[in-house]
Parts: sequence; C-alpha cells; structure tokens
Amino acid sequence: MLSELKKVVYEQNMRLPKLDLVNFTWGNVSQIDRKQGLFVIKPSGVAYEKLTPKDMVVCDLAGNVVEGTLNPSSDTPTHAYLYRKFKDIGGIVHTHSPWAVAFAQAGVGLPALGTTHADTFYGAVPIARALTKEEVATEYEANTGKVIVETFNGHGLDPEAIPAVLVRQHGPFTWGKDAATAVYNAKVLEVSAQMAFYTMQLTPKQASVPQYLLDKHYYRKHGANAYYGQR
Amino acid sequence: MLSELKKVVYEQNMRLPKLDLVNFTWGNVSQIDRKQGLFVIKPSGVAYEKLTPKDMVVCDLAGNVVEGTLNPSSDTPTHAYLYRKFKDIGGIVHTHSPWAVAFAQAGVGLPALGTTHADTFYGAVPIARALTKEEVATEYEANTGKVIVETFNGHGLDPEAIPAVLVRQHGPFTWGKDAATAVYNAKVLEVSAQMAFYTMQLTPKQASVPQYLLDKHYYRKHGANAYYGQR
Amino acid sequence: MLSELKKVVYEQNMRLPKLDLVNFTWGNVSQIDRKQGLFVIKPSGVAYEKLTPKDMVVCDLAGNVVEGTLNPSSDTPTHAYLYRKFKDIGGIVHTHSPWAVAFAQAGVGLPALGTTHADTFYGAVPIARALTKEEVATEYEANTGKVIVETFNGHGLDPEAIPAVLVRQHGPFTWGKDAATAVYNAKVLEVSAQMAFYTMQLTPKQASVPQYLLDKHYYRKHGANAYYGQR
Amino acid sequence: MLSELKKVVYEQNMRLPKLDLVNFTWGNVSQIDRKQGLFVIKPSGVAYEKLTPKDMVVCDLAGNVVEGTLNPSSDTPTHAYLYRKFKDIGGIVHTHSPWAVAFAQAGVGLPALGTTHADTFYGAVPIARALTKEEVATEYEANTGKVIVETFNGHGLDPEAIPAVLVRQHGPFTWGKDAATAVYNAKVLEVSAQMAFYTMQLTPKQASVPQYLLDKHYYRKHGANAYYGQR
Repeated sequence: MLSELKKVVYEQNMRLPKLDLVNFTWGNVSQIDRKQGLFVIKPSGVAYEKLTPKDMVVCDLAGNVVEGTLNPSSDTPTHAYLYRKFKDIGGIVHTHSPWAVAFAQAGVGLPALGTTHADTFYGAVPIARALTKEEVATEYEANTGKVIVETFNGHGLDPEAIPAVLVRQHGPFTWGKDAATAVYNAKVLEVSAQMAFYTMQLTPKQASVPQYLLDKHYYRKHGANAYYGQR
Repeated sequence: MLSELKKVVYEQNMRLPKLDLVNFTWGNVSQIDRKQGLFVIKPSGVAYEKLTPKDMVVCDLAGNVVEGTLNPSSDTPTHAYLYRKFKDIGGIVHTHSPWAVAFAQAGVGLPALGTTHADTFYGAVPIARALTKEEVATEYEANTGKVIVETFNGHGLDPEAIPAVLVRQHGPFTWGKDAATAVYNAKVLEVSAQMAFYTMQLTPKQASVPQYLLDKHYYRKHGANAYYGQR
Repeated sequence: MLSELKKVVYEQNMRLPKLDLVNFTWGNVSQIDRKQGLFVIKPSGVAYEKLTPKDMVVCDLAGNVVEGTLNPSSDTPTHAYLYRKFKDIGGIVHTHSPWAVAFAQAGVGLPALGTTHADTFYGAVPIARALTKEEVATEYEANTGKVIVETFNGHGLDPEAIPAVLVRQHGPFTWGKDAATAVYNAKVLEVSAQMAFYTMQLTPKQASVPQYLLDKHYYRKHGANAYYGQR
Repeated sequence: MLSELKKVVYEQNMRLPKLDLVNFTWGNVSQIDRKQGLFVIKPSGVAYEKLTPKDMVVCDLAGNVVEGTLNPSSDTPTHAYLYRKFKDIGGIVHTHSPWAVAFAQAGVGLPALGTTHADTFYGAVPIARALTKEEVATEYEANTGKVIVETFNGHGLDPEAIPAVLVRQHGPFTWGKDAATAVYNAKVLEVSAQMAFYTMQLTPKQASVPQYLLDKHYYRKHGANAYYGQR
C-alpha cells in the first residue's frame, strides 16, 4: 500500500539527521496522497539507523492508522489537522532543531532580517500562542495543529507563502508541496534562526528587510516570474 | 567476571565521543549489577580509541576495585556514592560537555524552558552547592556524590524524575535505569542547555513551561500512560 | 570551450560545501579569462553533488551566456559588473555563510580586530549601503555590483587590499586574483566574522588593531617584502 | 638528521586540523632536542594535506635553519625565544583557534572558571601586553616571544604550571614537556575559552574557582601526588 510514497517519506525522514536537524528519534516527516486522502508518517520513537521504508505508517485524515504494525509518530494528530486545514500542502516536518527551538522557547517570532530568510519565507515566521491547560490536557497534538492554523488565520497569513511556524515552548513545524520541500524549509528555518540570533545580538533592534526586497527575493524563487534555478 | 556488563559499559563509554560529549579521556560511564552489588566503570585516563571491553574495571559499592588491572576512573567514589544512595538507578555518566558545564560554572540551574527539556527532565535540573574547603581536601570525589544527594534530598527532588545534576564549577552528572539511558540523558541535558542558553540571550527573564505542559510531555514518554514510541 | 577554466571553476565551487560555507545550492564561484573577456560560473540552483565541470556556464562581460545549456547563477550580473569595474580581479565568490551574513544583516562592517583578519584584509571589510526600491526593482543583481563598487570608490578603498564586502541584508562577496584565492578569502572572512562576534560580545567597544600591526601582518603575506610561505 | 623528531613534529602538526584547531595552513607545532640545542618546526604556509615528515625544518636556538629546503614557520623566532627562556619546555604550539583568539582580541585573560580549566592550567591564562610600534617594526616574531616571557616574569607566573598565553590581538601560544602535550594544552585552552565565554554571558561577573579547588584539580593530574590516569 502506497509503497512509493513510503519510500519517499522514509528518504525524507533520513535527511533530517544528515542535515543536523535532529538528535535521536526526535523529528518526523510525512507526505500526503491527496487523491486517496491518506498520508504516510514515520513511526514513533524508532532510531533513524533502524528505520526502513516498510516501517512507515499509513494514516487517514482523522489521524487513524490505516496500515502499519508500528505506532505512528505521537505528533500524527498535528499532521492530520494541518492536512485537513491547509488543503494545498503535501508534506509536513517537525523537528527540535536548536536555533528554531530557541525562538519558540523565547516566544519570539522569527523576523525576516535578510535575503536568506526572504528567499523562502515571505515575511516573519509567526510564533503560535501557548496552548491552554485544557488544550494540553485533551487532544494535545490535535490542538497543536489547531493553534497553528489559528495563528495563520488570525493574522491573515498564507501558509503557502510562509511555510513554517514556531510552536511556543516547543519547536518548529514546516511544510511544503511535498515532504522534500518541507525538509528543505526546515533547514532554511534553522539557518535563518541562527543568522537572526547573531544579528539580534549585534544590533538588538534590527529592522526587517523592506517589502520591496522581500518581494524581490521571494518572487525570484517562487511563482510565475521566478528566474532562479533551471526551468 | 561480569563480561556482558563490561561489554555494555564499554559500548556506552564509546558513545560519548560519537555524541560529541567529550574531548580526550574526559567523561566516564558506569553500570551496576544490583544483585551482585558491583558496578563496572571506565579506567582512568585511557584514550577512547585504545579502550577495549576487557579494560573495564569492576568495583564494589565502597568504590574498591574488585577486578581489573587498570585504575578505575578518578570519579569512581562519586559513582559509588550515588549507587549507594539512589537505589533505583542502574547507570551513571559524567562529562565535561560545554553547554552543561557553562551552567555549572555560572552556578545557574537549568530551567525547563521547553518540551525538549520536559520530555526527559521533570523540572529544572538543579545546581549543587559548592563543596567546602574541607570537602575538597578529603574524599573529594565521594563528597561530590554527597553534595549531589544533598541537593536532591534538600529540595525534595526525585532523582528518577530529574536524572541529572550540575556540579558547581565542574560539570554534569546524569543517570538512569542503565548506562544507555544515562548516556541518552547526558545528551538531552547538553542539548537542553544549549537551547536554554540561546533562549535566555533572546529573553533574559524567560519563564519556565507551565506545570501542565511539563506533565504532558514528561508523562507522554514516562510511566504507565506513556504513549510515545513502541510498546 | 574554456574546458580547463570550467574544471577550475567546478573545483572551486565544490570547495564551498567542504569549507562549510554553503547549504544546498546557495553560493557561487566564477573565474575570468581576461584575454578572451569571458568568465565561467556555476549554473543556477543545481545541487553540488550533481554538478560536473561540463555544467559550468560561459558568460561575457555583459553577463550574457556565450556557451552552456543551463541557466547561469542568478547572481551572474553582479559578477559581470565586478569584473568590468575591478579590472585586476580574476575570481569572485558569493556565499550565505552565517557569521558574515549576521554582520551584513546587522548593517555592521567587519572591523579588523586581530591578526587573523589583518593577514588577509588590509582594514575593515566595508558594509554596502542598502539598495533603493528602484535599484531592487530593475536590474537588481547588476545594481548589487554597482553598490559594491560605489562602496569602494566612495571610501577610497582598494579592492585588491580588501577583497571582500558585506552586502546589506544579504551577505558577503569576496574576490581575488583567481577563484581559489576568492574561495580562500570567503573562508577567512567567515572565520574573522566569527572571531569578531565573540570579541564584541566580550568587549562591546573593542578597538581595531593599530595601523602598524595591520601593516605588519598584511605585508608579511602580501607584496614584494612578504616572507610568509615558500618562494 | 633528527628523523625521529621530525616524525613526531609532523604527527603533532597533523593533529591540529583533526582537533579543529586550525584552518588552512594557520598554526604550527615544534619540539626541541635539548641535548643538541635544536628544534624541529613545520615549514611556512604548506597545506596540511601536503605535509610529510621530511618537510619539517631543523632550527637552532637562534632561530636559524640548520637543515631543510623549505622556509620554517614565520613564527620560528617566537618558538626560539621561548625555548631559550623557558628552559624546561619541550614543545610549542601556535594556533588561531577562534575561542582563544576571541579572548586575545578582546584583551581579556582567561579566568579559571571551572575544573576543566583547572585540570590543566593552574590559574588564569594571562593576556600579554600589546607590542609597541617599534617592537612590531623590528624583529616582530622574536619580540612576540619577549612579551610572552615578560608576561610570565612580570606577574611571577610559572610557565610549567600555566602552559599557555594569549597574545593580544593575535592568538594563543601553548607549550608543554613535548609537542604532544603542547597540542593537548592548545585544545584544552580552546575548550576552556569556549566554556568561559558561555559562562560569562550567563553571569558577567562570574568569580574564578577558589584556590583549594584549583589545587585539588591541578594536583589530581600533576606532580608527585597525582592520581588521575594510569601509573
């Protein structure tokens, strides 16, 4: 069942340690088959060096396991919620990469301080509000997804243009048209957070890039008039 | 004698350089056989690349060498003291990993600022008081153990729920049900310290996570109702 | 066409990930054949592990592609502009290396705080002014070159003595007599920025090295009286 | 001539990049044969991957080349000066390792903030005064040695007990009974500087370790009563 998709999801999960984005079993990648309404995700708590494509778990959009002998990632309900609400995304990544976590723990959104950020994220990466005691106690992981969606809807943000969020006191989620793009975005987020941290130490009240530079760099890589890379 | 345990302790010691937790011969791992009342520990000052399972030293709970031709780690009396007082732990690790050492040198306990920390440590990792001149002069290493235990008892802390301590002006000790868990905890402590440092630079008066989030993440991974990983 | 030069440019591009100066496809290296008035540059957005010498693109000094089936780096007009105006340089490098980017994002030139810097850069590495909205909207990449040249001319700086610049809110460009030297300078810039950051955190108002120490170290390695290395 | 010593010096030079202490050709290691009054040192500006034991250069205590076809390290007169004045040392190392350089550039000596430092350095690592314009202009490298020795003599410091110095606006020199020990000390200095930096960011006015803890850790590893390691 979905054996090609399992292979893709396996390979994208394996990129996380190679890109220095995870320790141990922390972090997970999924990708959805929109036609079938099913997504494939990493199993919970299995070491990367022991993972195989067959270990990937197939879930439906309610987050229920449809196929697989292992438990899916404990963050599966967050993935399911995001796939239900962000209907154009195809892949999701969660990591505990340290620079992005630092901003999440500090409750500080990641400002767009330069072109490295603007090439991928069309504006500041938002910080989600803290979950309430009730939201943590019941359906915590689904509520994590709810708070992410609320963050985008409440501020009129487009999850395709800013494919990342910082979950307060927790860490980053990123997404994209597929798992490979979501993994790419996870690394760009981490590098952008590292650069922003250094920048803010040098000049604490550093201003974000102007809108026209944000436009230039974002649209140099995205949309109909993009001219970066090969066509 | 205890050849299986020696192999385990050897392998767990060898993980320390792989996890970027030690330089040179700094750091040591032990594991205890509670039935026999004996623990196995790394020899003192032997380079990791020259270690073999046979080099491991067997000690009793008084810290005396029972078997082995090499001197045991100079921190052996600390291990022995902790095994005597923390009766449910099975493995101990000491390193000079730089982020944890920084908090130890600064005399600052490690606050629980996010879920990376809360997944493993059920609250702030405490900082031990400084040893007195007398405690340093006589039985220094055993007194290091004494001060660690005093830290937990004095604050009513549970060494199973918070399996780590920062020894002031020195560095971290971690423990767990076995050596592998203690090594895991040593890495989580280092990563949590790194994240906390960045967070505190971004927002110096950063608050710890609320109790309900601490509960959620700690008990998602520990205890009867844990649902992270495979059962 | 220019097959030897393509090989050189390929090899120098491949040094960027080895020297930890780039992630993904970020960064590009070119080298010019001054007699023919043609330079060779990396194609745009091709992963380093897939690059071959044949993929290199040949451009003229107007930045037009003369040979090659792939699009050249999107920064090609910047390279072309610099080759037109800095007539003695032979190679150019652009990266998003994090320490240099941090100074670029902070709008802070890199002061010469020690001999590591002074061995390669004869004074502070300047920060270029921000491009205007109009300069970004039209011929952005060529205007980036224009602003770099303006920075050197406006301050009477010699691009041979200070072979690097920080483009505001963007990142570093370095150059040299050939691509290999420009790559070398890109690494020295990154290391010098790292050291300067730490230094400025320790002593925020740190003074630059005195002129006589700058002279000593720069001319120990450069010019007729250099005595570093082998002759 | 001195072929065994050349091999030793070659191998110790090759440890510098492996220990992440140097970039490119920066850094040099020497060791002396006290009976013959000759020392062996790395040639100047030769890439580590191209070095062979035969490339090592033999010098006398005046810093003159006695054997070798390559130019010796440009820092050779500093090594010669230190061997002449510090009569009990057998090996010397110079690097531009970034954490130690940061303290050197900041003009801040490295305080003994913990046991990692105290295990190797019996007190703060001193910062040398800046060289005068005249000292830089004439016999710069020998005068670097002169200022180092002046730093120790002026403060009554023992170069055997504190085998390291920070040369202002430049970087660290370390030494020891042989080249291997000097390389070890160079790494401990770098790690101690990293830990001290983090500590000072957490608590800017951090106090040094008390004398009795310094005594305990230093003499646990050094002198007649040392009990760390194997005897």
